[in-house]
Amino acid sequence: MQNTKVVKPTFVIDKQKTVKNIKRMQKKAAENNLSFRPHFKTHQSGGVGEWFRECGIDKIAVSSVDMAMYFIKYAWRDITIAFPFNILETERINAVSEEIKLNLLIDSEETLRFLHKNLKRKVGIYIEIDISYGRSGISYKKYDFLRKLMNEITKSNSTELKGFLYHSGDTYGVKGAEKVLEIHNNNLQVFKELKERFILEFPEISITYGDTPTASIAGNFEFIDELRPGNFVYYDLMQSGIGSCRIEDISAYVLAPVVSIRKNENLLVLYCGAVHLSKEFLIENGTKHYGKVFGLDNDEKIIREDNSYIYSLSQEHGLVKSDSELIKNVKIGDLLAVYPVHSCLTANLLKETLIVKG
Amino acid sequence: MQNTKVVKPTFVIDKQKTVKNIKRMQKKAAENNLSFRPHFKTHQSGGVGEWFRECGIDKIAVSSVDMAMYFIKYAWRDITIAFPFNILETERINAVSEEIKLNLLIDSEETLRFLHKNLKRKVGIYIEIDISYGRSGISYKKYDFLRKLMNEITKSNSTELKGFLYHSGDTYGVKGAEKVLEIHNNNLQVFKELKERFILEFPEISITYGDTPTASIAGNFEFIDELRPGNFVYYDLMQSGIGSCRIEDISAYVLAPVVSIRKNENLLVLYCGAVHLSKEFLIENGTKHYGKVFGLDNDEKIIREDNSYIYSLSQEHGLVKSDSELIKNVKIGDLLAVYPVHSCLTANLLKETLIVKG
Repeated sequence: MQNTKVVKPTFVIDKQKTVKNIKRMQKKAAENNLSFRPHFKTHQSGGVGEWFRECGIDKIAVSSVDMAMYFIKYAWRDITIAFPFNILETERINAVSEEIKLNLLIDSEETLRFLHKNLKRKVGIYIEIDISYGRSGISYKKYDFLRKLMNEITKSNSTELKGFLYHSGDTYGVKGAEKVLEIHNNNLQVFKELKERFILEFPEISITYGDTPTASIAGNFEFIDELRPGNFVYYDLMQSGIGSCRIEDISAYVLAPVVSIRKNENLLVLYCGAVHLSKEFLIENGTKHYGKVFGLDNDEKIIREDNSYIYSLSQEHGLVKSDSELIKNVKIGDLLAVYPVHSCLTANLLKETLIVKG
Repeated sequence: MQNTKVVKPTFVIDKQKTVKNIKRMQKKAAENNLSFRPHFKTHQSGGVGEWFRECGIDKIAVSSVDMAMYFIKYAWRDITIAFPFNILETERINAVSEEIKLNLLIDSEETLRFLHKNLKRKVGIYIEIDISYGRSGISYKKYDFLRKLMNEITKSNSTELKGFLYHSGDTYGVKGAEKVLEIHNNNLQVFKELKERFILEFPEISITYGDTPTASIAGNFEFIDELRPGNFVYYDLMQSGIGSCRIEDISAYVLAPVVSIRKNENLLVLYCGAVHLSKEFLIENGTKHYGKVFGLDNDEKIIREDNSYIYSLSQEHGLVKSDSELIKNVKIGDLLAVYPVHSCLTANLLKETLIVKG
């Protein structure tokens, strides 16, 4: 990568760090005897997917039929769509299941029955459970209902029972390993209960799990069969805030041109707005911020020695206010590196500008 | 448009309402003897641009070189890039200025001098001023500095002085016509001062102005030469909250499939997340919300008779909690209409799914 070629907001991936993030998680899965199915919703990139493949990974999760279709073009042949199945896309699913080994996610009888009526080829089915996150999924306490669904899945020729899927997204709302592990240990208890209750009746059931905070921080994965994190590929400020990674593990950032400077106010405007970073923010010392700003040395390496943030975002403008040396010495036309708050959303917005460093 | 064909989150434009929004603003500009240069950053659509052209509009504003290049393909030949000029894109600008009448925005001597050194063809220059918004722009009080820049622009063969540009973005942060007009009246005083001070020396200077709240609400546009709003084309919940429009003037929404329902909790999950709506939110009665949810009648018309909101957004999930009749009666696979908080960001995310109704 040559910064001299970068003239507008550009999403930069540090390949070395990204591969390190992938291998670290892959190793953890292997050491815990877990199948590893990384979620590709973060990078959404055929090219980055290849780095996973080079590590020997051959199954993935995605969060939409569109994404599944995209990755099929990149020769991925074992895909779980980890989003409550949208029955309006059944026709598209029938096309997809012809080509690959496909797992769908359901959390209702309506969706299951619709599938049983309309599926043309057999697909694997995970039942989404909910423990404490409160998004989609069936409460794990509804044992009778879960059993009923499992029976329906098992007895149909068009569906194969895979087990339970859970996304413990509430770990994104806490800070520190201790709090993440508290949620995780509670989840483990539930998984234990589910396994004990159902394993004799349904010996095939597996549990797929793995938000990035838990997958990064936890060491005990008893009762779990498959690890399914996504964000860990790049990490971001949200994850370093939770404690899932160190700031130096973050492997993606936005290169942003400086377009306006108000010296006396220690304020500068970056060409880097809501259409590049997304409006996801963190609150640091009582102040909202949309990204952390670093300088680059002469070799275009990031100098992580500053504490400047984007405090305001318009569609294309990012405002930085700081009395730091970096901001004092910056010139119009310089490129600064912005670490994103939420790399999934930034990657989604800047898909078309992705460049690889190293 | 047939809803039966919509199977995933889709950005729907009501053509009739959109054209009404365009004509209303165009009429206002005409009645106030203002040149009308709509900002195309909201819709970013060649097709929607045609509706403007059919109304007789022939000049536009955009917020990036990319957007200028996009609209040149749609035969727009008079474009102002209303964003502090990014000197890294000078080469691209030299290509663009060959084809069209181009105006750039500057707020520094560095940028101006860079342009004077590197421009290959003459371009128009607006100086961005700042009154109270505090984003980019030069404080209007720096008369001597403004004069210096104007002299430099005038005496160069590669730049033509156009005047002052201001975006009064602070109107987005207030509620009610009175507050918007307070800001506007203060701006008018500044425009008066600038005109009086500079018009004899620089008789060509004009003032271009027009955030959507002011352009929608104000009636007095003395001292202003050009109206340059963007968001009014669709409006959105933010604008109806400010008082720029009625909720029935909002002409764009997202059609979103229902994928999960928790009857007992009055909760449903829409396939409509942060990658569709953006994470822009409003606070209503102390509660964050990311979009207002309406039902559709048998003719696929929106029934604006409910008060349900998306209270939580993940990458692809939108969560709605409401004890309303709409939410009580909804079924998996139904499509609901989501009015966006900020239509510019939603349009940017859903560009590729845009469909037109009517």
